Amino acid sequence: MPHFKLTLAYDGTAYHGWQVQLEQRTIQGTIEQAILKLTGQSVRVTASGRTDAGVHALGQVASFSAECRLTLSELQTALNALLPDDIAVLAVEEVPAGFHPIRDAQWKCYRYVIHNGAIRDVFARRYAWHIVQPLDVAAMQRAATALVGTHDFSSFETAGAPRETSVRNVSRLEVSRDGSSPQQITLEIEADGFLYNMVRAIVGTLVEVGRGAEPESWPGEVLAACDRSAGGPTAPPQGLFLVWVEYS
Amino acid sequence: MPHFKLTLAYDGTAYHGWQVQLEQRTIQGTIEQAILKLTGQSVRVTASGRTDAGVHALGQVASFSAECRLTLSELQTALNALLPDDIAVLAVEEVPAGFHPIRDAQWKCYRYVIHNGAIRDVFARRYAWHIVQPLDVAAMQRAATALVGTHDFSSFETAGAPRETSVRNVSRLEVSRDGSSPQQITLEIEADGFLYNMVRAIVGTLVEVGRGAEPESWPGEVLAACDRSAGGPTAPPQGLFLVWVEYS
Repeated sequence: MPHFKLTLAYDGTAYHGWQVQLEQRTIQGTIEQAILKLTGQSVRVTASGRTDAGVHALGQVASFSAECRLTLSELQTALNALLPDDIAVLAVEEVPAGFHPIRDAQWKCYRYVIHNGAIRDVFARRYAWHIVQPLDVAAMQRAATALVGTHDFSSFETAGAPRETSVRNVSRLEVSRDGSSPQQITLEIEADGFLYNMVRAIVGTLVEVGRGAEPESWPGEVLAACDRSAGGPTAPPQGLFLVWVEYS
Repeated sequence: MPHFKLTLAYDGTAYHGWQVQLEQRTIQGTIEQAILKLTGQSVRVTASGRTDAGVHALGQVASFSAECRLTLSELQTALNALLPDDIAVLAVEEVPAGFHPIRDAQWKCYRYVIHNGAIRDVFARRYAWHIVQPLDVAAMQRAATALVGTHDFSSFETAGAPRETSVRNVSRLEVSRDGSSPQQITLEIEADGFLYNMVRAIVGTLVEVGRGAEPESWPGEVLAACDRSAGGPTAPPQGLFLVWVEYS
């Protein structure tokens, strides 16, 4: 049976996250419904990772197996026609049956957006964390360097599914203020994998530095503690975007 | 009684436009409710112009008279606390009782956003017109120059409230593709006033040029015809933003 790889964008606002849950509207369930309507087959769609309720994707990757007589381009068009307008299929490829979107993912990039201004941004309310207190972005960036590299990130993991190891390799972590709209702060982080709530825990910790509540050295100390209670709060979901997933 | 000028941003998606209508949720009605809650006074809030259902504002101007013991800053904070999160008060000033947001407006700027790509942008669905067919932005820009200046714009007016004159002075009309996200096309237009649906009629007409259905000379001919039926369709509301209003 052919195996298909989907690249997906979605606005997570109206969904209870990726994973199918009883009587909840989820991204996975909505896509599986569209495939069922199109092919008549009940399939399981597996993603590179679950996104939580309210979290968005610019380039999530998922895969499924189904019999399908359509070309790849027709399959994409048909799925986009069947899906609601807050989910879009950006690309469809046929991949070997052995392809697994979690196991085979090599690098992933997440973006977290903060609206840092006295007054709420009515257009960013679903897509950013609104922080009124001015943040020192340069201090956040300097503090973030302690987290780059291969470390045990258990201080930035919310208790969740058990993992073999909480060691991850963060290859890039950048905090910057948008040149054209300086109230927007963007944090981008690339790693070979992420623990549950890892990006949101890192953002919540760096914001403590940004607002001057903790020194720049603190995130490095939090990392060394290997204890989630040592760090800052978990940032809210609506600022988080899964940007891309890279495969070998 | 003191007279207050409000600068407002709103996401028009959930509203039946600016103007109060029976049993409909409107921007005007929502702001008047917030003022009633805050001051105990039923006031009329007048805007620089009505925006239609689904149209947004980055800098709408409105005014009202009320007794109020708060400072301007407290008034702003209290209104923002009472308003839903898709409306924000960006500024509050006290103005002379004679200030009238329609009559005294000297220049206004609107922006219209088009998402020009094969696949929908899930984040722009409420904030842009999705056009799949590639548009020739340079041709649209050249065609738009015929509309700059003082002209009778009745070809770009949907029958609405009667006006003394349909002559308006368009001082700037720019069509451009966003450098960092080239699928986004932005049209910005500044004038001393706008007729009903004028921006959306201009956009609908320029898009006919962009998609090659009409020559670059056509919008100038439409203008000269002084007949709405000569022009292109009215672009949908969700791409339209009132950017600012300038007063003397």
